[in-house]
Amino acid sequence: GWGWGAPGRRSLVFSDLTEHEYTQVRNYMWRQSNLKISHNKFAVPAENFIFLIDLLLPNKSDVLQYLDAGGKEPPRQASVVVFYGTQGVIKEYVVGPLPEPTFHTDVTQKKYGGDLHINSRPVTMGEYLLLFVFIHKNIFSKLSILLEESFGVSGNKTLKPFESMPRGARSGDRHTWISFFRDYSGMYIHPVGLEVLINHASRNDSQWTVDKLFYSGHYYDSVEELSKKYEAGDIDKIVYKPMLNYASLKPRTKALQVGPQQYYTQGPRFIVENNRVSYLDWSFAFGLSSLTGMRVFDVRFKGQRIIYELSVQEAMSVYGSVTPGMMLTKFLDSSIGIGRFAHELVRGVDCPYAAEYVDTFRYIDTSAPQRFRNSICIFEHDAGRPLRRHFSDFFHNSYGGVANSVLVFRSITSIGNYDYMWDFIFYQSGSVEAKVHATGFISSSFKVAGSMLFGHQVAENTIGNIHTHFISFKVDLDVLGVNNIFLTKDMEYKEVEVPWLQKTRAKIPHLVERQLATEQQAALHYGTKIPRYLHIASNQTNRWGHQRSYRLQVFSFTGDHLPESEPVEKSMSWARYKVAITKHKDEERTSSSLYSQNNMWSPAVDFSRFIEDNENIENQDLVAWITTGFLHIPHAEDIPNTVTVGNGGGFLLRPHNYFDEDPSINSPDSVYISP
Amino acid sequence: GWGWGAPGRRSLVFSDLTEHEYTQVRNYMWRQSNLKISHNKFAVPAENFIFLIDLLLPNKSDVLQYLDAGGKEPPRQASVVVFYGTQGVIKEYVVGPLPEPTFHTDVTQKKYGGDLHINSRPVTMGEYLLLFVFIHKNIFSKLSILLEESFGVSGNKTLKPFESMPRGARSGDRHTWISFFRDYSGMYIHPVGLEVLINHASRNDSQWTVDKLFYSGHYYDSVEELSKKYEAGDIDKIVYKPMLNYASLKPRTKALQVGPQQYYTQGPRFIVENNRVSYLDWSFAFGLSSLTGMRVFDVRFKGQRIIYELSVQEAMSVYGSVTPGMMLTKFLDSSIGIGRFAHELVRGVDCPYAAEYVDTFRYIDTSAPQRFRNSICIFEHDAGRPLRRHFSDFFHNSYGGVANSVLVFRSITSIGNYDYMWDFIFYQSGSVEAKVHATGFISSSFKVAGSMLFGHQVAENTIGNIHTHFISFKVDLDVLGVNNIFLTKDMEYKEVEVPWLQKTRAKIPHLVERQLATEQQAALHYGTKIPRYLHIASNQTNRWGHQRSYRLQVFSFTGDHLPESEPVEKSMSWARYKVAITKHKDEERTSSSLYSQNNMWSPAVDFSRFIEDNENIENQDLVAWITTGFLHIPHAEDIPNTVTVGNGGGFLLRPHNYFDEDPSINSPDSVYISP
Ligand SMILES: [Ca+2]
Ligand SMILES: [Ca+2]
Ligand SMILES: [Ca+2]
Ligand SMILES: [Ca+2]
Ligand SMILES: [Cu+2]
Ligand SMILES: [Cu+2]
Repeated sequence: GWGWGAPGRRSLVFSDLTEHEYTQVRNYMWRQSNLKISHNKFAVPAENFIFLIDLLLPNKSDVLQYLDAGGKEPPRQASVVVFYGTQGVIKEYVVGPLPEPTFHTDVTQKKYGGDLHINSRPVTMGEYLLLFVFIHKNIFSKLSILLEESFGVSGNKTLKPFESMPRGARSGDRHTWISFFRDYSGMYIHPVGLEVLINHASRNDSQWTVDKLFYSGHYYDSVEELSKKYEAGDIDKIVYKPMLNYASLKPRTKALQVGPQQYYTQGPRFIVENNRVSYLDWSFAFGLSSLTGMRVFDVRFKGQRIIYELSVQEAMSVYGSVTPGMMLTKFLDSSIGIGRFAHELVRGVDCPYAAEYVDTFRYIDTSAPQRFRNSICIFEHDAGRPLRRHFSDFFHNSYGGVANSVLVFRSITSIGNYDYMWDFIFYQSGSVEAKVHATGFISSSFKVAGSMLFGHQVAENTIGNIHTHFISFKVDLDVLGVNNIFLTKDMEYKEVEVPWLQKTRAKIPHLVERQLATEQQAALHYGTKIPRYLHIASNQTNRWGHQRSYRLQVFSFTGDHLPESEPVEKSMSWARYKVAITKHKDEERTSSSLYSQNNMWSPAVDFSRFIEDNENIENQDLVAWITTGFLHIPHAEDIPNTVTVGNGGGFLLRPHNYFDEDPSINSPDSVYISP
Repeated sequence: GWGWGAPGRRSLVFSDLTEHEYTQVRNYMWRQSNLKISHNKFAVPAENFIFLIDLLLPNKSDVLQYLDAGGKEPPRQASVVVFYGTQGVIKEYVVGPLPEPTFHTDVTQKKYGGDLHINSRPVTMGEYLLLFVFIHKNIFSKLSILLEESFGVSGNKTLKPFESMPRGARSGDRHTWISFFRDYSGMYIHPVGLEVLINHASRNDSQWTVDKLFYSGHYYDSVEELSKKYEAGDIDKIVYKPMLNYASLKPRTKALQVGPQQYYTQGPRFIVENNRVSYLDWSFAFGLSSLTGMRVFDVRFKGQRIIYELSVQEAMSVYGSVTPGMMLTKFLDSSIGIGRFAHELVRGVDCPYAAEYVDTFRYIDTSAPQRFRNSICIFEHDAGRPLRRHFSDFFHNSYGGVANSVLVFRSITSIGNYDYMWDFIFYQSGSVEAKVHATGFISSSFKVAGSMLFGHQVAENTIGNIHTHFISFKVDLDVLGVNNIFLTKDMEYKEVEVPWLQKTRAKIPHLVERQLATEQQAALHYGTKIPRYLHIASNQTNRWGHQRSYRLQVFSFTGDHLPESEPVEKSMSWARYKVAITKHKDEERTSSSLYSQNNMWSPAVDFSRFIEDNENIENQDLVAWITTGFLHIPHAEDIPNTVTVGNGGGFLLRPHNYFDEDPSINSPDSVYISP
């Protein structure tokens, strides 16, 4: 192995593809003339299109050979997703070696055990453009009176669409409800009361149809029916009223003196070298997947690996509404791409001024790699409270304490209306924290009869609909190597005789420890009694004879998970479990997939299958899948934006008998005062 | 009423007594020659002693008359606790008016509905001194060989005592197990294996007895029995080994460059005037009770009162052990005094350098008021993440965000081994957060047969025993006046017909709201299913027609509360409930009492009685009693000190339809960027 401070070259095994590598892979694929891949970034559904190029992470055993045992560097390869509009299939390829590819292997069957239905693909920019054209031609142009009278649409004033998912009720469906909003910044909280159901299942857009409309609380079978009834006055009309843009984020107040600012008065105490960060006793590699988002690998404390992988997996929301656009809405963001929307971070608001900012490159739904400037920030932050301290005025007078200065690794992904803020935080006491906060705009619906069963009114005619936020994380802890066990600890009152008192019994707390043997025992369902302490442990012991472990402490305010009887639940079965432990498999990389959103009924990845075989998890390479989140009942204060305060979740990975004493005993930030 | 920014004079109605006022009250009491009160700060139990002088908070209705309705200033009065060793009673007096008292009224009967048993008093410094003398004379001097051979006691090397509670098994008992520790800084994690049970129930210390001893895992009936058996070699001997002080908090590492530091580059944005703090839209009065600790009153946002009182009430721990000193241990810290131990805060560790530090004065277990320098700190802190933000690159390109700069109001109380850090945090979005973190030394026991059922070994021969932390807070929200209701909101899946699909049904989340009518309905037991959203609401509505409310969001990791069948449970019955709502009464000021610890079997305050009468809570002045905390299974990393990371609890008070939109829309910290 190699210790802290060693050059970060080996971390490149985890690094995202470079701009050059993306281009090389794309060019290689384009050169395969038999694949007939369009070069148009707005390729239409009938064409063949490279939707995604991303790093193919090498198999773990190969990486460990390389990092720990002098093995050779695993070949660098890309994963490429092609939508074959000409044939109606999706294929996934391994393309390599980089940077000069010489082969492409179709791994679709191997990876998914079958074909990928073409309509399980996300909607591309090319398809969106067609949808916009379709809407204008087939809806807007036929409803101009209604649009003007109801929504003030005229001249260059228009409406903006927001789509909901899933797109139908069974595999292959591609019927999307699109709701319309005022053409304002923050459109998401300006619903106007018009929603349309478009069937775009065909890859030939001339076959698309308007299947249903919803206007002012009523359904219509066709644009013509709506238009006719509207003009006949046979209808509840919405009457346009001009309105200030309450969604505007423009300051209403002049800046006062600035608030407190943090400075590295003696320079930063961390280094970013390629994709490796070193900070005091910590070091880790990092990357940003276009689909799943932020991730770190090979996380070491004092040179010892603790975490092989810590990564965001999925962000899911289930909505309730009386309006059709939102009635069945269930968003699975990794199908759109979570990391894809990691945009530039703003100094002084998103991260401190003095943070280090890192650019990322991605190739998703495009025809050329894109650079996202300052899309990751890394900074040391004074948490504003002591990490630990004790003041003594009994017998011995003294004070000892350590400031709680932490390293924060952050990205923020703005997926349409919502902004999720992702933090991995590294503490001097050997803990790592993953946190997610939600901010940005809520999704809203136009107020109609029955709306109040699903939320509160939050603005003029606008309902903030009740919804859940469930977030999936993957945590591959390796506690002193890959062979670990899963332990639980908790308390239990047991009655004992009090030895020095006659005939006196008392209930006193006992420590109760259990080792869980199988995946199904270790699948800890939300809503069941879960032991309070959960540990990934080694059979190696610390100085005091205890199994060295890291504890998982989950902070969660989730609502109820969708009942398992619902046909779409399979696509989000990871959310059943607060924590589930599986035996590591290279084939079980993610709890969700690119294809889950658009084929929820037969998802390419159903997490619950990982534990269906109920493997033994004793002295195995264990992976923890953690679900956190919160129930969101929007309220007036969600306007204009949901605040991060109280709207999030996360978990701590804490050493528990991993060390022989608190490692912050060696912190350079210790202070001691004697009288 | 008076608005934000108005002079803080009226806040003095909540201010702690001044040094001068304490002295005046003491002198007045001392002048009452018939009371025969000792002037000795180490008065013995047989004497009469002023244990406590503290502010008597005026009745709420009088304060509201004064603050809101031009009523006259309530008279300023003190609450005085006298231990009458000569008569064997405790009396509580109201003494006033301040600063020149002319009367003292015994309110004991009125307040407690009966006498206070003299042995329900906490142990005073005077009694401790007698106990130390007793131990030396009756134990140490008779065991010098054992002490030297087992513990290295000789010359000026000695052992230090740590006592456990409760002191016996029934009302009137005063039998205390005292465990001995090495005479090191951080003694609490250096148990030596000797514990003694001293009966000090008599106010005449010549009647005190050693009732039991515990040495090396075995019980002895008398010092003589232990001494005889030890000398006969008829015993498992502990053999002294010198040991480094692993409890030392002295830095082992040279300071590196300093970590990030926060500065008010343009000066602080808050003002502390007497006991009132003003910060942007916030203002509040504050105080520090010797018994219950930190508290704020009359908390206003934009001049509108939201909280009448937010205060710490109690910190309780229940331990498990095979050793007698800790087997039955249940600590109720407000009986010792939580605020009493709010010591000086260290700049740069306990609070930022630039914080404002406030002195406090107290009169508890003393003969003259004491000044505690810099025992409260107040600072603005950049939380290091946005309060809210949105990045838009769909249709409209723009960015809007607000830095999350908050005001922190803090004290840290070191009660023997533990240090509790108390924070009240004020957000620009109208939220207030209360947080408590534990740090300092764990309580530990010497390792003997059976120890491992109750914890882990954390150091040489040292067990960190399993224990609970339960913290009680009082929150008297007044949402647009005192007449409020208690609402719950949550989600529920209900099956509906999907209007646009034939014969298709789907389960979708509905908003479920309930108004709870009585105290017992609103006593939300831990371990039961509790609605996710809890609201103190007004019947006044916001612009959108919703009841204006503040939501209580509790962060808690508590262990199991002591079974109600245990006789001592009455003294901590507040811990049954995560949240309990009562109708405000001036007679129900605190969830615990000074006398709870030393008379757990018949406590002066049993919180569960507040709700026994099951009063109606509709349109009443409501008080929320919140319990938070965490289960602590100590591990090696608790040495030398428990870290604050993950070891705490708290709650948020969040506006929920209280405003018409997020009030941070007016923050001076807003940033907006357009392309
Ligand atoms: Ca499996
Ligand atoms: Ca593992
Ligand atoms: Ca009552
Ligand atoms: Ca109230
Ligand atoms: Cu939300
Ligand atoms: Cu503890």
